[in-house]
Amino acid sequence: MENFEFFTPTRVIFGRNTHLKVGTIVKEYGFKKALVHFGGSSAKNSGLLDAVCDALKAEGIEYVTLGGVQANPTLAMAEKGIGLCLKEKVDFILAVGGGSVMDSSKCIADGAGNPEANVWDYFLHKDAPAKALPVGVVLTLSASGSEMSASCVITNEKTGLKRGFNSVTHRPLFSICNPELTYSVGRFQTGCGTVDIMAHTLERYFSSSRDTALTDRIAEGLLKSVIEAGKIADMEPDNYEARATLMWAGSLSHNGLTSAGRSFVMQVHQLEHELSGMYPRIAHGAGLSALWPSWARFTCPADVNRFAQYGVNVWNLDMDFHNPMKTALAGIQATEDFYKSLGMPVTLKELEVEPDRIEEMAEKCTNFGKRTLPGIRELGKAEMVKIYSMAMG
Amino acid sequence: MENFEFFTPTRVIFGRNTHLKVGTIVKEYGFKKALVHFGGSSAKNSGLLDAVCDALKAEGIEYVTLGGVQANPTLAMAEKGIGLCLKEKVDFILAVGGGSVMDSSKCIADGAGNPEANVWDYFLHKDAPAKALPVGVVLTLSASGSEMSASCVITNEKTGLKRGFNSVTHRPLFSICNPELTYSVGRFQTGCGTVDIMAHTLERYFSSSRDTALTDRIAEGLLKSVIEAGKIADMEPDNYEARATLMWAGSLSHNGLTSAGRSFVMQVHQLEHELSGMYPRIAHGAGLSALWPSWARFTCPADVNRFAQYGVNVWNLDMDFHNPMKTALAGIQATEDFYKSLGMPVTLKELEVEPDRIEEMAEKCTNFGKRTLPGIRELGKAEMVKIYSMAMG
Repeated sequence: MENFEFFTPTRVIFGRNTHLKVGTIVKEYGFKKALVHFGGSSAKNSGLLDAVCDALKAEGIEYVTLGGVQANPTLAMAEKGIGLCLKEKVDFILAVGGGSVMDSSKCIADGAGNPEANVWDYFLHKDAPAKALPVGVVLTLSASGSEMSASCVITNEKTGLKRGFNSVTHRPLFSICNPELTYSVGRFQTGCGTVDIMAHTLERYFSSSRDTALTDRIAEGLLKSVIEAGKIADMEPDNYEARATLMWAGSLSHNGLTSAGRSFVMQVHQLEHELSGMYPRIAHGAGLSALWPSWARFTCPADVNRFAQYGVNVWNLDMDFHNPMKTALAGIQATEDFYKSLGMPVTLKELEVEPDRIEEMAEKCTNFGKRTLPGIRELGKAEMVKIYSMAMG
Repeated sequence: MENFEFFTPTRVIFGRNTHLKVGTIVKEYGFKKALVHFGGSSAKNSGLLDAVCDALKAEGIEYVTLGGVQANPTLAMAEKGIGLCLKEKVDFILAVGGGSVMDSSKCIADGAGNPEANVWDYFLHKDAPAKALPVGVVLTLSASGSEMSASCVITNEKTGLKRGFNSVTHRPLFSICNPELTYSVGRFQTGCGTVDIMAHTLERYFSSSRDTALTDRIAEGLLKSVIEAGKIADMEPDNYEARATLMWAGSLSHNGLTSAGRSFVMQVHQLEHELSGMYPRIAHGAGLSALWPSWARFTCPADVNRFAQYGVNVWNLDMDFHNPMKTALAGIQATEDFYKSLGMPVTLKELEVEPDRIEEMAEKCTNFGKRTLPGIRELGKAEMVKIYSMAMG
């Protein structure tokens, strides 16, 4: 087990009807004026936005609203939010939505807390925010884990670069997680979320660190539960237990629990960021789904037993002791089949990615020759090209 | 899954040599003067206390020391600490030790933060602390989980009453967890710790709540890891991986993770508190070990399948589908055998408990007729007497 720090200060308020408490909770912390940040029309049409605003009003908390965050949230939207916060003297940001809204809110919080800084510099690791406005969350999508995580990913719409950075300022102060709010999430987005949750745990699980039996077992148990719940939510969108499992697993997958004692680099996420950075129409979860099986088949020969362990402990496969590769590949196949069963793409072809842009994606993923990605197999540009090509199908 | 709040703001700094960072970490928070609180001579003799004090000195942090905390920490010691904090104008408490030292520190923090209050009133639920001094931890024992928990248990040496209460003020600000510091923990204390960690998870696992598959799997994985690591640490006290697993499992067992979505009452802990309250020579872990098998056999008929699940998923037993009780009882027996293999008592007779004091223990455990303990089987005085009697052996 490697040395680690575990710090998840976010207060999670989980369960039915919890979103109705948002006014009381914000009031507890003594905030005066909120930016209520949200996405498209669904928060409006479902009545959630009104319910949240009413709850704030009832406690005498002022607010301004800013909607319109889209998948792969942009720097332009965040800059708009920063301007609004400064103009309106907002002291608190309330994200009502999923990963895009939360990440946009975190970026706004960094910017509004440091008006002198250029917020994009943080994403280029040229600078780091010393402070930020506090962020609270009313979660509407089980996927990103951003509701408990230190991460924040933004796309610079001018350059097509999608970049993330981790900061303690990104841990939300509180997250209100009501699984009922995800009943209305459609099949495709539910599938994307399930893949994203699994990916957050899988990227930590397939690490070259050893001696992490406890963390392994937690990760394996979480993956089994997500697979079980993902299947049920796909058939019965309003199954509370399945939606609750996905939501809680989403938070635990990205808060540090499933990486305690391990080093890891999220290789598939990095490969996917270039994909959806270049093709903003591609949903993050769909990109992960299309890339993971190829990443896994490419990586597997370098640690066959790890992939076999995954097949046995997550997919209940019998271990082929004479030919562990068989078990390893069967586990990858089971994952691919599961993603397909949810209606997710498992090749880049299905996403209409042009083969002649692979070179450019790989180049961007190396940050223009400035980095390789360590892991079970280290990825340089040649390896990235190989994985993207395998994923073309 | 039931509604829940999950809030574990403690920053955990885990791994080799981490205790040497204590000065830097305390300085980060800007504290000026610490009470360094510790137990017996082992912290002194091992050189740990000197190392901690040197680290504080190196950063210019003043401190006073208070040692002598014993197992089942007393109100008298806490009152001494409160007086010292007020006299010395301490702004921070550093607990160097295990559960007893941490709980004594938490009680001191409550008292010193509220000089006008009678701190024992908190334990009688007559009052609650609105604030407290911050507490940091250098952990030397894997057992109580107090390093991440909201709990604090103190014995009033005048009345023999052992009482605990949970409070957000009890969550340590940070906990430095170096498994190497537990190499010197002897066989008996290591066994007590292993039992205590398992008990924290078992008490949450055997709940009457349903639909907690994710939390179940996390709990089962944790228990398997603790059993594995407990056996190894018993044979090889300086096995880093085993000591690390016990330490991290200890923190996760009592921070809320293994109860997310469940109601629970720690029945065996309550029964044990009366035991070691009345016989302060009995170590908490030994008391739990002596009581759990009888509690389990008494409770099992009310939820046979739950105990069978435990046998299958934790002890790798084959399910007897025609006679689940057989599997259920085999799981309890496996636990008892494991505790015995660690040199732990599995009856009260081994602890030289007098049968004619059972009545009094049960009476105290009902808080003199004022409460029953809900659970898979609700415990009133008659049921408590029955369990204590079964445990006599």
